Amino acid sequence: MTMQLVLLRHGESEYNKENKFCGWHDAELSAKGREEAADAGKALKDAGFDFDLCFTSYLKRAIHTLDLTLTSLDRCWLPVIKTWCLNERHYGALQGLNKSETAAKYGEDQVKIWRRSFATTPPALDPEDPRNPALQEQYRGVDAANLPLAESLKLTIDRTVPYYEAHILPEMLAGKRVIIAAHGNSLRALAMYLEGMSEQEILEFNIPTAVPLVYTLDDQGGFISKEYIGDPDVIAAKVSAVANQGKAK
Amino acid sequence: MTMQLVLLRHGESEYNKENKFCGWHDAELSAKGREEAADAGKALKDAGFDFDLCFTSYLKRAIHTLDLTLTSLDRCWLPVIKTWCLNERHYGALQGLNKSETAAKYGEDQVKIWRRSFATTPPALDPEDPRNPALQEQYRGVDAANLPLAESLKLTIDRTVPYYEAHILPEMLAGKRVIIAAHGNSLRALAMYLEGMSEQEILEFNIPTAVPLVYTLDDQGGFISKEYIGDPDVIAAKVSAVANQGKAK
Repeated sequence: MTMQLVLLRHGESEYNKENKFCGWHDAELSAKGREEAADAGKALKDAGFDFDLCFTSYLKRAIHTLDLTLTSLDRCWLPVIKTWCLNERHYGALQGLNKSETAAKYGEDQVKIWRRSFATTPPALDPEDPRNPALQEQYRGVDAANLPLAESLKLTIDRTVPYYEAHILPEMLAGKRVIIAAHGNSLRALAMYLEGMSEQEILEFNIPTAVPLVYTLDDQGGFISKEYIGDPDVIAAKVSAVANQGKAK
Repeated sequence: MTMQLVLLRHGESEYNKENKFCGWHDAELSAKGREEAADAGKALKDAGFDFDLCFTSYLKRAIHTLDLTLTSLDRCWLPVIKTWCLNERHYGALQGLNKSETAAKYGEDQVKIWRRSFATTPPALDPEDPRNPALQEQYRGVDAANLPLAESLKLTIDRTVPYYEAHILPEMLAGKRVIIAAHGNSLRALAMYLEGMSEQEILEFNIPTAVPLVYTLDDQGGFISKEYIGDPDVIAAKVSAVANQGKAK
């Protein structure tokens, strides 16, 4: 018996559109992002997918992507579990800065390191900064000691993978068909774990927005294969667009 | 110590707009309904309301009303529990019929009895009818023996109130601030229970769309008072509009 797990990165947000580091800033989907999310649901429906349980982050661009996808699938009524552990990587003091401007200021190589390296943490927020999650209503239910001021991909993995092992995988092993709607880096963290990628491999691995990425796993959750659901040309163009975001213009 | 419980009937749906018996038909919100839902969230925010836990039905007009309300409140990340026990009353074979046409055919009095009486069940669906919930994907997780072919308000109460007592009230007693986004009749069922209304009182009690109805309860959940949140003139006009839906035109 094999299992399938669908990962879905949110559609374009108002922040993506402006090419800014968004992180935990709670940006809403753009009109294009809403369309992308509805299209993702149609692609899953056309391919015959169905689900029993959904996971998403605390951020509305992922929550709304999931809802629009479920609406296209006629599955609005499915249970949805929201967790901050699936949030985007926290970009610290970079949150809100334009990526091209940041590249011009710090250099394209430094930005690529901050965006794509494994263990380098971007400049941390001052604890008094109102962007500190420990000061925000949104995280009032979370132990402040667990909340970051900035995260590397490694630190993102340190919260994403334990959540997957404790809360998602057991549901899959119990027979539930799962979709996770989340973010570029929280999903890269899961992809690295699922595929056993090296640090170099994850540096070059990009997930396009709102294209369902389907993992086929063995009955213990071990990796067998992956594929995107949708038009291959559209997917290739989207993968290339993500890779080019960190370049100075 | 008192507790507050907010009941929110969904905004206008495509079916409300056409003045049809909707019941468990899974109609989407109209554009006006989406606006109403967002306005409900703004009214709650202006009045200083906040929540810890949300309940809604399996029907997308309630699910989306809740999401739009939470979006206005900056509370998209709150946990949402969906249950078929908060669904609209099942209108049996009347589902899909226009209310004015039904009134012209069966008489306004009969329609008022079907819509507003306590124990009269409308004509039941044939079990082979594709509208039978036991045949629908949406209810695949529910024991078919519990699913109705038509419901009186009394039968609606028989599933709504036990759910409230088993799953909602305990959360409130544990200190959670709760909002329930549901339907005209599932909320009337709760209102009758909360206030100890007579069968005659509930017959004349209408809940307007997307106007938050706030119950103040004692520390055991006993009724103290209720009030609507919003502009009193708008609320009065909405209450009157609901009461007139069953009249022949």
